[in-house]
Amino acid sequence: MDIRSQIVEIAKNARSAATALARISSDEKNRALLNMAEELIRQTGPLIKENAKDIKKARLMGLSEAMMDRLTLKESTIEGIVGGLKEVAALPDPVGKVTAMWRRPNGLLVGRMRIPLGVIGIIYESRPNVTVDAAALCLKSGNAVILRGGSEAINSNIAIARILQGVLRKGPIPEEAIQVIPMTEREAVREMLQLEEYIDLIIPRGGEDLIRAVVNESKIPVIKHYKGVCHIFVDAGADFNMAVKICMNAKTQRPGVCNAMETLLVHQDIAGKFLPVVARHFKEAGVIMKGCERTRRILRDIEKAAEKDWYEEYLDLVLSIRVVTGLDEAIAHIEKYGSLHTESIITSDYQNAQRFLNEVNSSTVLVNASTRFSDGFELGLGAEIGISTTKLHAFGPMGLEELTTTKFIIYGNGQVRT
Amino acid sequence: MDIRSQIVEIAKNARSAATALARISSDEKNRALLNMAEELIRQTGPLIKENAKDIKKARLMGLSEAMMDRLTLKESTIEGIVGGLKEVAALPDPVGKVTAMWRRPNGLLVGRMRIPLGVIGIIYESRPNVTVDAAALCLKSGNAVILRGGSEAINSNIAIARILQGVLRKGPIPEEAIQVIPMTEREAVREMLQLEEYIDLIIPRGGEDLIRAVVNESKIPVIKHYKGVCHIFVDAGADFNMAVKICMNAKTQRPGVCNAMETLLVHQDIAGKFLPVVARHFKEAGVIMKGCERTRRILRDIEKAAEKDWYEEYLDLVLSIRVVTGLDEAIAHIEKYGSLHTESIITSDYQNAQRFLNEVNSSTVLVNASTRFSDGFELGLGAEIGISTTKLHAFGPMGLEELTTTKFIIYGNGQVRT
Repeated sequence: MDIRSQIVEIAKNARSAATALARISSDEKNRALLNMAEELIRQTGPLIKENAKDIKKARLMGLSEAMMDRLTLKESTIEGIVGGLKEVAALPDPVGKVTAMWRRPNGLLVGRMRIPLGVIGIIYESRPNVTVDAAALCLKSGNAVILRGGSEAINSNIAIARILQGVLRKGPIPEEAIQVIPMTEREAVREMLQLEEYIDLIIPRGGEDLIRAVVNESKIPVIKHYKGVCHIFVDAGADFNMAVKICMNAKTQRPGVCNAMETLLVHQDIAGKFLPVVARHFKEAGVIMKGCERTRRILRDIEKAAEKDWYEEYLDLVLSIRVVTGLDEAIAHIEKYGSLHTESIITSDYQNAQRFLNEVNSSTVLVNASTRFSDGFELGLGAEIGISTTKLHAFGPMGLEELTTTKFIIYGNGQVRT
Repeated sequence: MDIRSQIVEIAKNARSAATALARISSDEKNRALLNMAEELIRQTGPLIKENAKDIKKARLMGLSEAMMDRLTLKESTIEGIVGGLKEVAALPDPVGKVTAMWRRPNGLLVGRMRIPLGVIGIIYESRPNVTVDAAALCLKSGNAVILRGGSEAINSNIAIARILQGVLRKGPIPEEAIQVIPMTEREAVREMLQLEEYIDLIIPRGGEDLIRAVVNESKIPVIKHYKGVCHIFVDAGADFNMAVKICMNAKTQRPGVCNAMETLLVHQDIAGKFLPVVARHFKEAGVIMKGCERTRRILRDIEKAAEKDWYEEYLDLVLSIRVVTGLDEAIAHIEKYGSLHTESIITSDYQNAQRFLNEVNSSTVLVNASTRFSDGFELGLGAEIGISTTKLHAFGPMGLEELTTTKFIIYGNGQVRT
């Protein structure tokens, strides 16, 4: 069979699995998840052996240490993955939830009930833990999933799929509810992205290049974010110590992630006092600062920020800083350079807090808290399948509910339309 | 300026109008809608004159009577349009509504607030009333709109746009919040569908061919339904008279619309008694019936339904009829041939009613009511911008809320992530 036929086969099987899976009870889905956890522990040895093949090859190919780290499955990694499975099993099932119900004047009782989206394709980099995470979230939300991880993790992913499908084979969930694309050719992804008839949604996870490639080729709706250029605006009346603490946390607690701060905006009335203090902390933490003209009049030894810096997602200990005349200029800056991801204002001014929350239409907007809270777990969604900066369907961190849609259910007693 | 530049200009202007419009209060939006209603009445004369140009040309081109009817603006049509504007003004504003709010263990107060999608492109046929309807719904939900109607209505649409923008010009809403594409070339649509940077959503309204063309060319997310192949399943234990009344209503009350019944499924235990009675009513109403083998053993004088009939949206007084062995076969038929639009079961059996509601994952599923209720107004959404059979973002009839998304708003008091 050629690649195209194989991918169509996978997608068709996923579609029929999805129909069956939509009717599986929460108990049965949870039991499957817990059995998968058990099987992963039981088969840790063979799994690590398969993973070793990937690692060996990746080392020959000269993968970076960070990538090697993400690729490697150790006993402790597998324990972490298994813990995640148990957490997903413990979450409430979104499917079947009636989110609202109302009675019409003619007596019709109209409600909206959550149902799975159907078949979801996940395209990601060489991180075998994502294979299990994504499979678990899709299964719990009643969706069949087609997983396409980075080619460097192919042996690990096939081994994981074998374990998870082994559990499903005992019933009642069809084993095609979880499928890993077993080949590394790029053509396989391209074919997959054409199958709008069988696949309802594509979620790409990874760097901007990967995501742009998927968006450009896909005929299927894609939910994604390209990058997170997150801002903090320190207002004139900010609590000084709180502002320092939050800025440090947002920039340095984990600089390589999408909800880390990339640009600091400071009100001109507080800049002269605030910038020297926060800059001292940044310097100690190894943060390289780049500033606008006014910033550099206060912090004389930092580099000038170029126009392109304001658009930059550094994902590193680098920060752009700009002094602004006030809230309006801060909002205008975010509108122009922002990525619709996450922005925070540090202020003690009630009106400014409310205006920032109302007027900044990024997917997550905070007052007096770190941008690092823009995360499914931290916001209380219980899980996270990704973050969307596309306004359609979901905007911001996505949990289980965002993997469902709603249908209208209507109880009548003979009504006809006049 | 070439067409591409003109369309980019329109889209850019819409984008900046959207930013301003997102902050306009409900009162200001409602005032604009009511002023538009007044202006349309005041300028009825000139508007009908512009419409006459379109009608004259359309007559020369030999448009069908049904299309001529939709194209024509009479005083009574304009009064109807104006009534619609007043209704939209009276609806609650979805923007700013906080749909949920919860407190996290660390004290963060997390909520979801409705915000406009941004810029919406509507592509439709030669129906000038849609120009006003769609503009009103987008304005009310805080979205800038780019309207592209059928070329036969170009003079009417430009005249309407001039009236609506005249009202906006008095402030505070930027007049570019409502724009009609002032040219009839197809190239204009093609260019528009490429501008994902400026346009957030495309809603095509019209026949399947129009919609497929839009979906194939668009880089922007499209919400649509191709067709409505709606089913009614008459169960063994159905209330006989109710079943006849509902079937008649669903097929004959307005056969040319997407929520009319196209296929009737009848339980074998009731078929012998039910089909002759309902067929008599259908015949009186001029309905042409096509049946499966078992149906034709009961209704001997009707035509055989071919395989392709089960997929057909007749939009006419034509109906396919199939006798099924029970609920399972009915659901399987709907799964295979259905269009995810609207299905109804007529039954007195509690278990079967609940199973049908749970297991049929079309966008609207009813018990003991006509499929004709699958409609934004009838379901109580207050308005309808369209019906979606795409599961992403919205599924089923779409009202004002479906023209919004939600952002996360977070009230903190110094929280940082550990």
